[in-house]
Amino acid sequence: MQQRPAEIVDLKKDYVEGHALPRAFYTSREVYDHDIAAYWNQSWLWAGHVSQIPEPGDYFLFDYGPESIIVVRDRDGEIRAHLNVCRHRGSRVCVEQSGSARSFVCPYHAWTFDLSGQLRAGRAMGPDFDPGEYGLFPAQLRVFQGLIFVCASDSPPPIDAGLAKLAPLAEPFGLDNLKIAAKRTYPVPANWKLALENYMECYHCAPSHKEYARSHTLKAPEQMDRLMAPLQERSREIGLPVEEMDQTGPNAPAPGADVYYRRYPLYPGYETGSRDGHALAPTLGALTGLDGGATDIQVGPLNNFLVYADHLLGYRFIPRGLQETDIELVWMVRGDAEEGRDYSVEDLTWLWHVTSLDDERIIRHNQSGVNSHHFRPGPLADMEWGITGFYQGYLAMI
Amino acid sequence: MQQRPAEIVDLKKDYVEGHALPRAFYTSREVYDHDIAAYWNQSWLWAGHVSQIPEPGDYFLFDYGPESIIVVRDRDGEIRAHLNVCRHRGSRVCVEQSGSARSFVCPYHAWTFDLSGQLRAGRAMGPDFDPGEYGLFPAQLRVFQGLIFVCASDSPPPIDAGLAKLAPLAEPFGLDNLKIAAKRTYPVPANWKLALENYMECYHCAPSHKEYARSHTLKAPEQMDRLMAPLQERSREIGLPVEEMDQTGPNAPAPGADVYYRRYPLYPGYETGSRDGHALAPTLGALTGLDGGATDIQVGPLNNFLVYADHLLGYRFIPRGLQETDIELVWMVRGDAEEGRDYSVEDLTWLWHVTSLDDERIIRHNQSGVNSHHFRPGPLADMEWGITGFYQGYLAMI
Amino acid sequence: MQQRPAEIVDLKKDYVEGHALPRAFYTSREVYDHDIAAYWNQSWLWAGHVSQIPEPGDYFLFDYGPESIIVVRDRDGEIRAHLNVCRHRGSRVCVEQSGSARSFVCPYHAWTFDLSGQLRAGRAMGPDFDPGEYGLFPAQLRVFQGLIFVCASDSPPPIDAGLAKLAPLAEPFGLDNLKIAAKRTYPVPANWKLALENYMECYHCAPSHKEYARSHTLKAPEQMDRLMAPLQERSREIGLPVEEMDQTGPNAPAPGADVYYRRYPLYPGYETGSRDGHALAPTLGALTGLDGGATDIQVGPLNNFLVYADHLLGYRFIPRGLQETDIELVWMVRGDAEEGRDYSVEDLTWLWHVTSLDDERIIRHNQSGVNSHHFRPGPLADMEWGITGFYQGYLAMI
Repeated sequence: MQQRPAEIVDLKKDYVEGHALPRAFYTSREVYDHDIAAYWNQSWLWAGHVSQIPEPGDYFLFDYGPESIIVVRDRDGEIRAHLNVCRHRGSRVCVEQSGSARSFVCPYHAWTFDLSGQLRAGRAMGPDFDPGEYGLFPAQLRVFQGLIFVCASDSPPPIDAGLAKLAPLAEPFGLDNLKIAAKRTYPVPANWKLALENYMECYHCAPSHKEYARSHTLKAPEQMDRLMAPLQERSREIGLPVEEMDQTGPNAPAPGADVYYRRYPLYPGYETGSRDGHALAPTLGALTGLDGGATDIQVGPLNNFLVYADHLLGYRFIPRGLQETDIELVWMVRGDAEEGRDYSVEDLTWLWHVTSLDDERIIRHNQSGVNSHHFRPGPLADMEWGITGFYQGYLAMI
Repeated sequence: MQQRPAEIVDLKKDYVEGHALPRAFYTSREVYDHDIAAYWNQSWLWAGHVSQIPEPGDYFLFDYGPESIIVVRDRDGEIRAHLNVCRHRGSRVCVEQSGSARSFVCPYHAWTFDLSGQLRAGRAMGPDFDPGEYGLFPAQLRVFQGLIFVCASDSPPPIDAGLAKLAPLAEPFGLDNLKIAAKRTYPVPANWKLALENYMECYHCAPSHKEYARSHTLKAPEQMDRLMAPLQERSREIGLPVEEMDQTGPNAPAPGADVYYRRYPLYPGYETGSRDGHALAPTLGALTGLDGGATDIQVGPLNNFLVYADHLLGYRFIPRGLQETDIELVWMVRGDAEEGRDYSVEDLTWLWHVTSLDDERIIRHNQSGVNSHHFRPGPLADMEWGITGFYQGYLAMI
Repeated sequence: MQQRPAEIVDLKKDYVEGHALPRAFYTSREVYDHDIAAYWNQSWLWAGHVSQIPEPGDYFLFDYGPESIIVVRDRDGEIRAHLNVCRHRGSRVCVEQSGSARSFVCPYHAWTFDLSGQLRAGRAMGPDFDPGEYGLFPAQLRVFQGLIFVCASDSPPPIDAGLAKLAPLAEPFGLDNLKIAAKRTYPVPANWKLALENYMECYHCAPSHKEYARSHTLKAPEQMDRLMAPLQERSREIGLPVEEMDQTGPNAPAPGADVYYRRYPLYPGYETGSRDGHALAPTLGALTGLDGGATDIQVGPLNNFLVYADHLLGYRFIPRGLQETDIELVWMVRGDAEEGRDYSVEDLTWLWHVTSLDDERIIRHNQSGVNSHHFRPGPLADMEWGITGFYQGYLAMI
C-alpha cells in the first residue's frame, strides 16, 4: 500500500464527527488518487453474479477509476479474479467487456496467460526468464450465494465472519439463482463519495423522491416502526427470518468489513417496489409470496442491495474521475424468469429509474455547492447515521 | 481567508514592475484556485441591476468560478445577497438562474431559508439544533445608483469613499433608471487575467479593433487630448460634469477599492458608439442630448462600465476555469425605452459585438503564447498603465 | 533550463534498467510539464522539409505541447527558426500554420518582427526602448539534406558529428529533392513516451501488425539475418552503401545526440513497402532500382524516418497533453513525382495507415493498463533494446 500523502493527514484533522467531510475530500485530485489506491483498491467490490459466467472460459470485466479486474471461470469451473494489467509493459490483456476465452493474449506483445492467470510463456524473453514470476496479479474473491465480490488488495477487509452471519438471513432469497434483467448507468458529475452518501441516508427521500416516498416507509422512521410488526408477521409467513444485523461503522469488526441486513415495510397496498404495488416478477428463491417488504443488504460500505420478494437491485457508485461517477443499477430476477412472460423490463425498472434521475440531479447540485470555497460541512441529522459510519471506516483506511 | 501557498509567495518575487506577470500566474491550477479564494472572493463584483428584481421575492444568481451568489429582494423590499451553499451538506439551495421565490428550499433535504437567508427550521434535526446558527452565509452588498455590487468576504475592500466621490459624476446618467436590453457571453480559452488585461489598455485598439478605432479616440492619446476641450464643452451643455477621477492602482485608498471616472471624445461625426455615429436609444437620465463622448467607469478592478449619452455597457470577465473565461457584456438603456420603438438590439450591440469577437481572438492567441515555457514577460507601454495598476492591487491581495 | 522537481529525482530512483519506466512517468502532470521543458525543449525535433518553404517569406509552424516554432525562409533565402512568442506580452506572433509573409506582425499590439526575427520597432514604447533587445527568441536549426531540424534550447545536443557520419549513407536517397505527398495524424489518448516506445521496438510487430509483418523482416530477427546478405548485394547494385551506424543510447556521443542508420530486408516478392510488393513511386535520388529493403534512420531519439527505395516516411509522436499524443506520419516522394501519374496517395499510404491504426489501438490499451495503480514495469525483451537506449538519454536529460 502506498504512503499517505501529507495533505491527507492534515485533512483528516479537519473532519468533525457528526458533520460532512471537509471540501477537499470532494475536490482534490490528490485525495481522489489516494481514494483509489488506499480505499477502493483495499475494499470489497461487488463485481457481478455467477450467472454472467456459467461456462469455463466465460469472463467479464469490472472497471473502476483507472483499474480493471477480470472475473473469469477457469477450466476447472472455478471463478477467479485477475488484475487486467500485463506484467510486461502494462497493457490491458483483456479489452472486451465480456466474452468467452481460452486464454488471455495481451494485444501488445502476445504474452499469453491461461484462465488461472499463469503466464504460459514469454515469447522471445530469453533463457533466464521465468514465466512463473509473471502471472497476472490475482484479486481476492468471495462468492456469496452467487454474488461475486473482489478486492484488489492482498489483505482485504475480514468480511468472512460477517458473510457467515448474513448467510442464513439471505438464504431464502435464493440469490444464487438469479439472472440480470436490466442494467443502467446514470453518470453524475460529482465525487463518488457524494453519490454514495446519497444512498446511505433516507433523510432526503421525502423531499426528493416523490415516487419512492409514496411506497417506501424508510423516509419516515416513526411510520416505519409502526408498520414493522405486521410486516414481520407477513415476512415469516412467506419464509423470511425477521432478524436485523448491523455490523457497520462502529459495529464493524474492522474497517471495510461492514455487513448490514434489515427488512422494512412498504406502505399498505404495495406488495413490492412497483408503480402499482403489484408483483413485478416471480417470487425469489424459497419465498411463498409477497410480504410488502424491502431488505437493505450491505456488504462492505460500497456495495448495496435492495431485495424485494420478487426482484433485487444491486446499487453501486463507480468512480470514473475526481468529479465523475457512474451510478450503476443492476436489476435481477429469479433465474428461470422470462422477459415478456414473467416480467417486463419497463415495469421492473420504473421506480428506481425515476428515483435515480432524481438522485443524479440532487447529487450534481450537491457537488456544485461543495465546490464553493464557502462550503462548511454542517451537522448531520439522525437519519444520516449511515454516513458517519461510512466516514469512520473510510478515514481509518486512507 | 486561507493561507498563501508557498508557490504564490515565490511567484510574486518573479514579478518585475512595468512588465507582464510571470507565466505561472496564467498557467498554474494552484494560482487559479488561490485567485478565486484570495482575490475574487475578496473583491467587489458587479452582479446586476435593480431592474432585474423589481418585486419582493425576485432573485437572480451571479456565478463565478466555483461560487454562486443569490441576489434577492426580500419581503421588506430590501436587496440582499447570500452565498448559494446549503449550511447542511453544501448543496446549491437555488438552482434556477433567476425567478421569484417565497423562500429557498434546498433541493436535497428541504432545509428552508427565508429571503433574508435565515434557516426557518432544520427538519428532523433534533431538539439541540439551533436554526439561528445555520442561515445562509451573507455576501456584502452595495447598491450604487441601481448597480448591484457584491463581495463574498466579511472584510470587503473599503469602496464607500470612492463611491461617494463617484456619485455626483455619474448622477446625470440616471443609472438607477435602466433596463437590460441585451446580454452576450464570449467564452475565451484563457485565464481571466489575460481577458481583464485586454480591457485595461487601448494600446491594442488601433491594430486590433478596426471598427472601434474608427470612432473612439482612446487608441490615440494625442488625438484624444486635442478633441478633449470641445467634448467637455458639449458635455457641459447636455448636463455632464467634466471632472476626472483616478483612484486606481497606486491612487486607490486600499487594494481592491479602485474607482475611476473619465469621459473621452469620440471622433467627429460620432454622437455615440454606433455604426453610423447616430443615436441608438433615448438619452440617459437627465441628459439633454448627445455629446459624442464615452465615459469609462471602473468600480473595483473587476467591474467596468462604458457610458455613452444614450446607452451603457457593463463589461466583466468571469473565471470558469484556469483557462476558461467568459467575457460577458450587458447592454443597458433608459428604463422606459422600448425595443423596436426606441432602440434596435442589433444596432445597439453591433460595435461591441464585433469588438468582442476581435478580443476573443487576440486573448486566445495571447494565452497560447503565454503557455510556452519560453514566454518572458516583456516591458509594458505607457498606454498599458492600467495593467500595472491592476497588478499592484492584485499582488497585495493574494 | 528549469530546476528538476523533487518528484522527478525520486522517480528516477524507481527505474530499474531493463524494465519499462515507473507509472508516474506516464501519469503525472508534473512529469509531463517537465518533459516539455527539460526534454522536448532541449531535443532536436524534425520540423519539416525545405520543399515546404521554397521562396523567401515562406514559413510553416511546428507546434508541440505548449510550444510553437516558426520555420521561415528569410529575404536572403536562408532558413531560420524562431520561437512563436511575442517578446511584449507573449502572444503568438504567427497564427497561420503556413503561408508567406514579409514580416510577422503580432496580432495583439502590432509589434513587427522581420523574417530574421528582429523587432523592427516597438510602437509607442518610448525613447528608452531598444528594439534590438526584443527580437524573437531563436531556435537552433540544422538542415540535413533537406530535412529541417530545430531545437528550442541554446545548448542543443551535439548532433553534428553524427550527421556528418550519416551524410554519405543517406546521400543516395536524394533527401534534398523530395516533396510531401501526404500527411496524416493519428491522435492517441496516451503519453508521448508510450507512443514513441511503440515505434522503438518490433517485438510487437508479429502479433500486432498483420500487414507489416507479412512484408517486413524486422519482426523476426533470425529471418532478417538470413535475408540480409542478398539484400546487401541488391542494395549495392542500386547504389546504396551497406554500412550500419548505431550511435544510440549507450553509443550516443551525448544524451539526445543519437543517430542511427540500418537497412534491412523485406520478404521476397516485396520491392518496397507496398500492398502488392510493387513500386509505389519513382526511385529516389541516384538509386537505379528497387532493392526490396527499408532503412531506419533516426536523428535524435524523437525523429524517425523509414526509407524505401521509392518513398520515405517521417514518423513523429507529438505531445499535446499528459495523455494526448499525435502520431504524425509524413509520406514523401521524389520532388518531381506527380500525383496521379507517378504515384497514388491511396496506394502510397496504405501500409502505414493500417499499421498506425493498429498502433493507436495497442498504445491506447497500454496507457489504460499503465494507469492502474497495480502496474509494475516488467522486463523488456531483447528485441526492445531501443527503448532502454531511449531511457538512458531521457533520464540523463530530465
